[in-house]
Amino acid sequence: MPKGSLTVLGLGAMGSAIAHRLRGAGYALTVWNRTAAKAEPHTAAGAQAAPTVAAAAAAGDVVFVVLLDHATVREHLEPVAAELKGKVVVNLTTTTPNQSRATAAWAAEYGIAYLDGAIMAVPDMIGTPDARLLYAGDESAYAIARPALEALGAAEFAGADPGVASLKDMALLSAMDLMLLGYVQAIAMMRTVGTTAADTAGEVEMWLAAMLPYGREIAAIVDGGTYDTGGQSVDFDRAGIASLITASREQGVSARFLEAHRVLLDELAASGHGASDWPRIIDRLTIPS
Amino acid sequence: MPKGSLTVLGLGAMGSAIAHRLRGAGYALTVWNRTAAKAEPHTAAGAQAAPTVAAAAAAGDVVFVVLLDHATVREHLEPVAAELKGKVVVNLTTTTPNQSRATAAWAAEYGIAYLDGAIMAVPDMIGTPDARLLYAGDESAYAIARPALEALGAAEFAGADPGVASLKDMALLSAMDLMLLGYVQAIAMMRTVGTTAADTAGEVEMWLAAMLPYGREIAAIVDGGTYDTGGQSVDFDRAGIASLITASREQGVSARFLEAHRVLLDELAASGHGASDWPRIIDRLTIPS
Repeated sequence: MPKGSLTVLGLGAMGSAIAHRLRGAGYALTVWNRTAAKAEPHTAAGAQAAPTVAAAAAAGDVVFVVLLDHATVREHLEPVAAELKGKVVVNLTTTTPNQSRATAAWAAEYGIAYLDGAIMAVPDMIGTPDARLLYAGDESAYAIARPALEALGAAEFAGADPGVASLKDMALLSAMDLMLLGYVQAIAMMRTVGTTAADTAGEVEMWLAAMLPYGREIAAIVDGGTYDTGGQSVDFDRAGIASLITASREQGVSARFLEAHRVLLDELAASGHGASDWPRIIDRLTIPS
Repeated sequence: MPKGSLTVLGLGAMGSAIAHRLRGAGYALTVWNRTAAKAEPHTAAGAQAAPTVAAAAAAGDVVFVVLLDHATVREHLEPVAAELKGKVVVNLTTTTPNQSRATAAWAAEYGIAYLDGAIMAVPDMIGTPDARLLYAGDESAYAIARPALEALGAAEFAGADPGVASLKDMALLSAMDLMLLGYVQAIAMMRTVGTTAADTAGEVEMWLAAMLPYGREIAAIVDGGTYDTGGQSVDFDRAGIASLITASREQGVSARFLEAHRVLLDELAASGHGASDWPRIIDRLTIPS
């Protein structure tokens, strides 16, 4: 049985890696890119280059969208809604959860089966088991596209809410961003006494690896919801953070990354929660609506 | 040859763990605590309880200080400077680097050999190889006290600057603090779609473990000092952080922990460094003096 026909819209670094992998997996492939020259390596590998988005959309049963951003996605898809009707669109462009939801609603209106994907990998990882791709939205579309999706890396259906793959991606990226700021803060503090960034990063890496499982304790406290386990309290943490901020400033290094933590702890203490477990700060992250 | 005489001032959770371990290692031990009853388990194990700080200070060749904070240390040590003359003081109380330096200067004035220590362990870990203790200050005092110090855990001399053990401790704790805020941020975002904190923490733990080595790349860029390796730029990172902040807010979750990062990136871009490698933000952490 021949494999189905696929389309890839957008041949940037990630789109190109995806197109190469899908063609390598034996699919009939049509590609389109704003700058046509980028299609050449793909036609050399046996793909068809479509002259227009409409032609590209018409060619594939499953249409992968790997464009710059949400606005670019809508600009390119809206004029070809007729060509996409009855097909599966897999939007792998990085978008926020609400943008994903909006595109899903648009697709539903035009009879297009919509999957929103988030790629937790760099282009070089596409096609290896280290690439993890999350999908959300239309679960029957996921079932249809699954063999092709699994050619790209470890595939996971995250839920029917079309925003949830993007949300999970962004939650993990947020955690990573803060961890990386931790490296920067420690490096900044230690270079004031002549320690190289490499030496500090080596120490931080070992230390954080040992401390990673502490996240499970935070989670148990948050899921418990009572914040009275008798572990590290808001007041205990306030004293600790104050020392960190003082130590940093004494060395002539700003502690602005830690200040947001102190502000939340102070707010909690002011509202009578000084004796609560410190993860109670999560409640103060909820924006009043 | 009998082991030397040691003193422990302060029998809180950490001081008690240290005293138990030193007595267990075979040292003649004298303890003192503000509340005398806390000495009982130690006298039962063969330690002497001193009635006054002066008597305790006079009894040991090496005096461990494990008190509440810097002010408490000075309040207790200053009146017994005469008894401490010619001895080694190992201050394991949590203090900032400048507080450590100030106590070292005071000790030098009174002919007291001073070591400032930082304990990277919880009390239960004392005496195991998992406990890591950093020492800084008088290196000959370190050599004298070393057998006792090694009874407490893995011992490391961090340098002659008496503030450097404390600084390193606080740099690592700062990195950990930011990593833990990363867990909190991700948990807060994902619980808006009904994901338990435990599920999110499990995902974050795996993800961060995989991303930990990225700290080495940051370090290489910072040590290189040119910020022109062509890796992720300030402008690229600005777009990424803006998406994370938007995604978080769309879900009704504050992104205040990420805001400090965005502010620094915006400042860098405004000063013409949008194309620099993003770790250039470390230069903006230096407080103008």
